[in-house]
Amino acid sequence: MPNVAVVGATGYLGGEILRVLSSHPRFQVTTAVSKSRAGEKLADVAPNLDGLGEVILTEGTSALDADVAFLAQPAGEAMKVVPGLLERGIRVVDLGPDYRLPDPAEYARVYGRPHDDPGNLPRAVYGLPELFGENVRSARLVANPGCYPTATLLAVAPLIERHAISGPLIVDAKSGTSGAGASPSATSHHPEAAATVLPYGTPEHRHSPEMRAVLDRLPGPRVSLVFVPHLVPLVRGILCSIYAHPTEAGGVAHFEAIYRERYRTSSFVRVGTVPKLPWAVGTNRCYLSVQSAGDAPVIFSAIDNLGKGGASQAVQNANLMMGWDESLGLTRSGFGV
Amino acid sequence: MPNVAVVGATGYLGGEILRVLSSHPRFQVTTAVSKSRAGEKLADVAPNLDGLGEVILTEGTSALDADVAFLAQPAGEAMKVVPGLLERGIRVVDLGPDYRLPDPAEYARVYGRPHDDPGNLPRAVYGLPELFGENVRSARLVANPGCYPTATLLAVAPLIERHAISGPLIVDAKSGTSGAGASPSATSHHPEAAATVLPYGTPEHRHSPEMRAVLDRLPGPRVSLVFVPHLVPLVRGILCSIYAHPTEAGGVAHFEAIYRERYRTSSFVRVGTVPKLPWAVGTNRCYLSVQSAGDAPVIFSAIDNLGKGGASQAVQNANLMMGWDESLGLTRSGFGV
Amino acid sequence: MPNVAVVGATGYLGGEILRVLSSHPRFQVTTAVSKSRAGEKLADVAPNLDGLGEVILTEGTSALDADVAFLAQPAGEAMKVVPGLLERGIRVVDLGPDYRLPDPAEYARVYGRPHDDPGNLPRAVYGLPELFGENVRSARLVANPGCYPTATLLAVAPLIERHAISGPLIVDAKSGTSGAGASPSATSHHPEAAATVLPYGTPEHRHSPEMRAVLDRLPGPRVSLVFVPHLVPLVRGILCSIYAHPTEAGGVAHFEAIYRERYRTSSFVRVGTVPKLPWAVGTNRCYLSVQSAGDAPVIFSAIDNLGKGGASQAVQNANLMMGWDESLGLTRSGFGV
Amino acid sequence: MPNVAVVGATGYLGGEILRVLSSHPRFQVTTAVSKSRAGEKLADVAPNLDGLGEVILTEGTSALDADVAFLAQPAGEAMKVVPGLLERGIRVVDLGPDYRLPDPAEYARVYGRPHDDPGNLPRAVYGLPELFGENVRSARLVANPGCYPTATLLAVAPLIERHAISGPLIVDAKSGTSGAGASPSATSHHPEAAATVLPYGTPEHRHSPEMRAVLDRLPGPRVSLVFVPHLVPLVRGILCSIYAHPTEAGGVAHFEAIYRERYRTSSFVRVGTVPKLPWAVGTNRCYLSVQSAGDAPVIFSAIDNLGKGGASQAVQNANLMMGWDESLGLTRSGFGV
Repeated sequence: MPNVAVVGATGYLGGEILRVLSSHPRFQVTTAVSKSRAGEKLADVAPNLDGLGEVILTEGTSALDADVAFLAQPAGEAMKVVPGLLERGIRVVDLGPDYRLPDPAEYARVYGRPHDDPGNLPRAVYGLPELFGENVRSARLVANPGCYPTATLLAVAPLIERHAISGPLIVDAKSGTSGAGASPSATSHHPEAAATVLPYGTPEHRHSPEMRAVLDRLPGPRVSLVFVPHLVPLVRGILCSIYAHPTEAGGVAHFEAIYRERYRTSSFVRVGTVPKLPWAVGTNRCYLSVQSAGDAPVIFSAIDNLGKGGASQAVQNANLMMGWDESLGLTRSGFGV
Repeated sequence: MPNVAVVGATGYLGGEILRVLSSHPRFQVTTAVSKSRAGEKLADVAPNLDGLGEVILTEGTSALDADVAFLAQPAGEAMKVVPGLLERGIRVVDLGPDYRLPDPAEYARVYGRPHDDPGNLPRAVYGLPELFGENVRSARLVANPGCYPTATLLAVAPLIERHAISGPLIVDAKSGTSGAGASPSATSHHPEAAATVLPYGTPEHRHSPEMRAVLDRLPGPRVSLVFVPHLVPLVRGILCSIYAHPTEAGGVAHFEAIYRERYRTSSFVRVGTVPKLPWAVGTNRCYLSVQSAGDAPVIFSAIDNLGKGGASQAVQNANLMMGWDESLGLTRSGFGV
Repeated sequence: MPNVAVVGATGYLGGEILRVLSSHPRFQVTTAVSKSRAGEKLADVAPNLDGLGEVILTEGTSALDADVAFLAQPAGEAMKVVPGLLERGIRVVDLGPDYRLPDPAEYARVYGRPHDDPGNLPRAVYGLPELFGENVRSARLVANPGCYPTATLLAVAPLIERHAISGPLIVDAKSGTSGAGASPSATSHHPEAAATVLPYGTPEHRHSPEMRAVLDRLPGPRVSLVFVPHLVPLVRGILCSIYAHPTEAGGVAHFEAIYRERYRTSSFVRVGTVPKLPWAVGTNRCYLSVQSAGDAPVIFSAIDNLGKGGASQAVQNANLMMGWDESLGLTRSGFGV
Repeated sequence: MPNVAVVGATGYLGGEILRVLSSHPRFQVTTAVSKSRAGEKLADVAPNLDGLGEVILTEGTSALDADVAFLAQPAGEAMKVVPGLLERGIRVVDLGPDYRLPDPAEYARVYGRPHDDPGNLPRAVYGLPELFGENVRSARLVANPGCYPTATLLAVAPLIERHAISGPLIVDAKSGTSGAGASPSATSHHPEAAATVLPYGTPEHRHSPEMRAVLDRLPGPRVSLVFVPHLVPLVRGILCSIYAHPTEAGGVAHFEAIYRERYRTSSFVRVGTVPKLPWAVGTNRCYLSVQSAGDAPVIFSAIDNLGKGGASQAVQNANLMMGWDESLGLTRSGFGV
């Protein structure tokens, strides 16, 4: 069985990758890296991770040996280690932002630091398999998308490709707090977060440039993007409510038909009724729904920010990189309640 | 002291009116009507309502005697009793929708039944005091606005009056579940509502025609309205995120200046930083904030759906109808947390 | 593959059984019964249930043919159909209470109606596999335990068997609201349930007689039971905090040692640190922890009320009834967050 | 009007004191001390605090001049400044723990540091007015009780004084997360706290010694105390479920009669049905209820941890110290929902 390493194993995304891999039929987790908890037994740090009980957390990546490495680290960390990993022939799925923006100058603007590894940017494939799956199959380095871009792009890309909407594109996103990661902060302090809906990320959330970079690559009209994320008092789940101007009549049924055609063979994108987040939580699925609001269409896109918006999409990418069925280990149904 | 009656005393809005009145310096609650709990002591049904301990719930309004009657009932109930109340010289604040739409045909379309009392529609004043306070002062019948229209109109009316925006106006609203009232339903069943963000009210929420009716009366450009409400897992509070196209440069500062000028003498509208719902909960305040999202402005409007969006606004209206300071009994500060 | 029927398919327990079975390696769901939604496609009613997409909901059990039937219905329903199912050679796992109390007179007292099928009570095995697994293996009719009894008995049975505690046994339980089922009610109305901790079930919750019936069968001292359940604002999960008087010194370490010995070969009971409910949610696991509170021990027992406290335990029982490994299809790890 | 200072004005308790005082009829807030935000306008830091808009946050207490000072600071801070404040004739209500334990050696054991001001310990009155109101009236230094002791002692003191219970006393407490204060921590990180019930404070919460110190002073039997707090996913509110052995028959009615007699003249303690936390939130009330659980009584005690468990009780104490009605500024009703 191919060996897998997870770097950043005690963060939320790292933990979710390990959870997904714990019941994967082919990947075997052999290495879990955590600077802060190195030396401890993974199952002691994360008692939910059962089948991985014997894995001991290690400190660094210099001696890391694996067929695939998942990097789940803050911005700026992956680009320090990716060159070495690639040189040693390790396939890399990076869940951080280091390889998502093709332009290193844009990276520097958004993340406030120069890019350390611009040479590998052209090799990085943006890992949204429903859009770029063919590229992912042959990639050695996949930049796993952010959670908001995943929910947004799956909803808007088919419409843009078909010239079915014109801008501006307004994305009002509602996210659970796990997207902020495992480090306590004022924003995610329970007494602050539990009793409100908190708009944030103004004037520009870091995921906006990421979305724009992808939108600009799509065949279809250029659309401007207004993206406003809100924290809602949930742990997992993102719902994006998306408003755009339809270019022709047909309305809801037209959009739905485009989605059904576009995702006909997709394992993970469903089109139908207004979604509930529990359906998506813990899964790799994206639920899309088109409704009319007065005369205008509104699109709802629901995912698990840690699942399709992160860890399970990373595993989907790794499946593809290995030449396997993309859905290996990812077919479990979500909750009804 | 003027006597007050509350009809629908055991609903959420009725209960909140009673709560607000329990510490009002001038109004005295003498009658509380509840069909379902008639004969019981109010304080037994609602142990939180202390100073009103001796009030006994009564059944109907036929013998009701009061200076002001607050009607907090489902659609269709108020119009049965308003004519009689007005005839007996009782001032009425109706928290239901029966007198909000000036056109009885529109009422019939939206509520699926003919209007029983079209003759009083011209007498009804739309009770949003920040916009129509002068009319409220001389009114005998006030149609208290819905919660979403309150949050929306306070944010957009000043911009429309100043021709500062053009349409379409996109209102993405997030509301706690108390807005749905005290009757259990599938949508507000805790296991369903607690783990998701639920878009609803498509294709047309009943508050959309109400908002359009007011928008059409404003001096300024006609704007189309896209209104999409969402239930969030909170009990009280509404946050509206409002997207509109600015007609001139100036951006955030320009909008803020318009608000500050418009609400300079307002007791209840505050303009500033991104709001937290606990500041508004239990109060009659509306917190407005303008932020930029990329190149576009986004406006946030936060109220308590049961407070400024219902009960305390009703008391504000009643204060005005009595010729008093609008803020009597409504100055308590909201929670910091 | 053995065929499975789920009766009560659109309730919360029924839906969770279907979810668990949707990725079971051997059972095949062929029948899903729902009176209220008969004729509809399961996947339309429950969009989360993917692999079961072609199943059509049916109305009754008279023509039901299956190797195993899971009954997830309100009290009083199972006993109408169990005799017929057993006669047709169908193995039955009943998730309702009809076969949990061995004494039909006690059933009549607790449920307010006579028992319709007392003849099958002696054949019913109480399906808590960690205590009665051997009996389950040969059973044709299993009474799947209630959620609170599962969490409580797994924690106290080993201590009683070893005479390590004396009474009274105080069980302060905290449960998510999904335990109340899919029907809206005043207690589970979101505005009521979301902002409080609600003690209920006084003076006697129906699970108390069930627990007492099992406690009385255990080898060991008789202990009296004080059981007080509370609804907490969560959807899934039960935490029982259990207080009992230790009969000898040794404290926390002594209790822990008893648990580790007792559950040495258990697939699903874990002993360790203070548990978090997400670890258990969606799984068949029970997390036990012993801590000291001043001089006294306190035991925490955490399960998913719909999982180990219901649906997945039912599948565990069915696995055993088929002569298989009890953990088939039940090994997925729970959430870290 | 008497001048008031609040030290620790930007913490949760300090903010709540200011909120309560903002509508107090006699106290005037003239000073608000916050090390971290000194120099800023209070209303900018806390936009909910309206009537206090002109107050500027200051840094220290050395020049503080006021009739009453409320100290809302972490353990160890108050004892540094109390001697100076008392010398300058300022009445002090300390919301921290520094003056709650009469024995400085016990303080050193519990808080891990020696007491800096043992000389003032004998002057400190434990500010639970329902038990020690007469002492509070003449006090210059009041040690405001902790939130858990308030909820617990109001429920158990009358029973102990009447010899109606014997030990052990088991207190299973459920608290919202605001009790942990405004500083982010792993325990109160929203993704961790929002989806579980978290037992903590084992083996000994700091409030246990505080409760024992008071229990030991009461006339009546000595009872041992087992106290286990749990965080529940709420912001404000504490529910204590209390289990004790009754010494005589009479049960629920007997306990209720004791409470009603004991609190006959109390402004803030209510006895009746099972409470809901919103009734207590934002108020100074304690709701008590006695129910039977099988053969045993269980007592529920509900307060707002920041209200009667902190800020509003502090104002109640200050009212008494000024020789006023204890309920001045504290009569507002709580929420029904």
